[in-house]
Amino acid sequence: QSCCGIDNLIDQKIQAAVKSAVSAVSSKVQMTCTSVKSGGANARCPSGYIATSCACGMACGSWDIRGDSICHCQCGGIDWTSARCCKVGLRG
Amino acid sequence: QSCCGIDNLIDQKIQAAVKSAVSAVSSKVQMTCTSVKSGGANARCPSGYIATSCACGMACGSWDIRGDSICHCQCGGIDWTSARCCKVGLRG
Amino acid sequence: QSCCGIDNLIDQKIQAAVKSAVSAVSSKVQMTCTSVKSGGANARCPSGYIATSCACGMACGSWDIRGDSICHCQCGGIDWTSARCCKVGLRG
Repeated sequence: QSCCGIDNLIDQKIQAAVKSAVSAVSSKVQMTCTSVKSGGANARCPSGYIATSCACGMACGSWDIRGDSICHCQCGGIDWTSARCCKVGLRG
Repeated sequence: QSCCGIDNLIDQKIQAAVKSAVSAVSSKVQMTCTSVKSGGANARCPSGYIATSCACGMACGSWDIRGDSICHCQCGGIDWTSARCCKVGLRG
Repeated sequence: QSCCGIDNLIDQKIQAAVKSAVSAVSSKVQMTCTSVKSGGANARCPSGYIATSCACGMACGSWDIRGDSICHCQCGGIDWTSARCCKVGLRG
């Protein structure tokens, strides 16, 4: 080794550990989604999930999201509503 | 303690700090979403957000996303458009 | 410096490196989305992406997502389907 005092060796240890951790985080961060379908005009995402979109029965494309996690289809007499629900976290 | 030279002690310090940081990142990474509703056939997400879906007035389910952040409803004479807008980051 | 034994110095090195890495991760984590449009009633996201919503021709707002990455429009004789597809990762 061309280097070095203990200072350099410690820096190398630290950098290697941090680099390895960043790489692990990079490979583990992911989005996870699930769909929830309910009868009627509302569908609620599971706890911890946020609604990214809604689908409605009767070909209806008019909807809104309430409180970040509840899909509400606006067409009259709607028969079903589904929520697309996602969250982000580290896997494993 | 059954161990150790200074080398072991330093490794332990590093591993503990890195583990704690990964745990902190894991608990802070999150998706945040908001909805933007506009009159007419277009709705634009706030800066930094990406559109994950669109909803349209008149029960219309035909839309496209332009430039990652603008919702465009395709049905003629559309009265309102809303964009579901999300981003990912570390909380706090 | 009012401190310190070598122990303090090593702790400072570790904390600085970890703090810098967390800051780098925070600035790099992001959601990336793309849209895929196909003729017919189905559209498939690219590998690694998850469908966050679907849009359909014929003004249809009734759809479902199959296997996390395939959009299926439910209205009869549908002419086109598009999938909004997203993933999360570290940039760069």
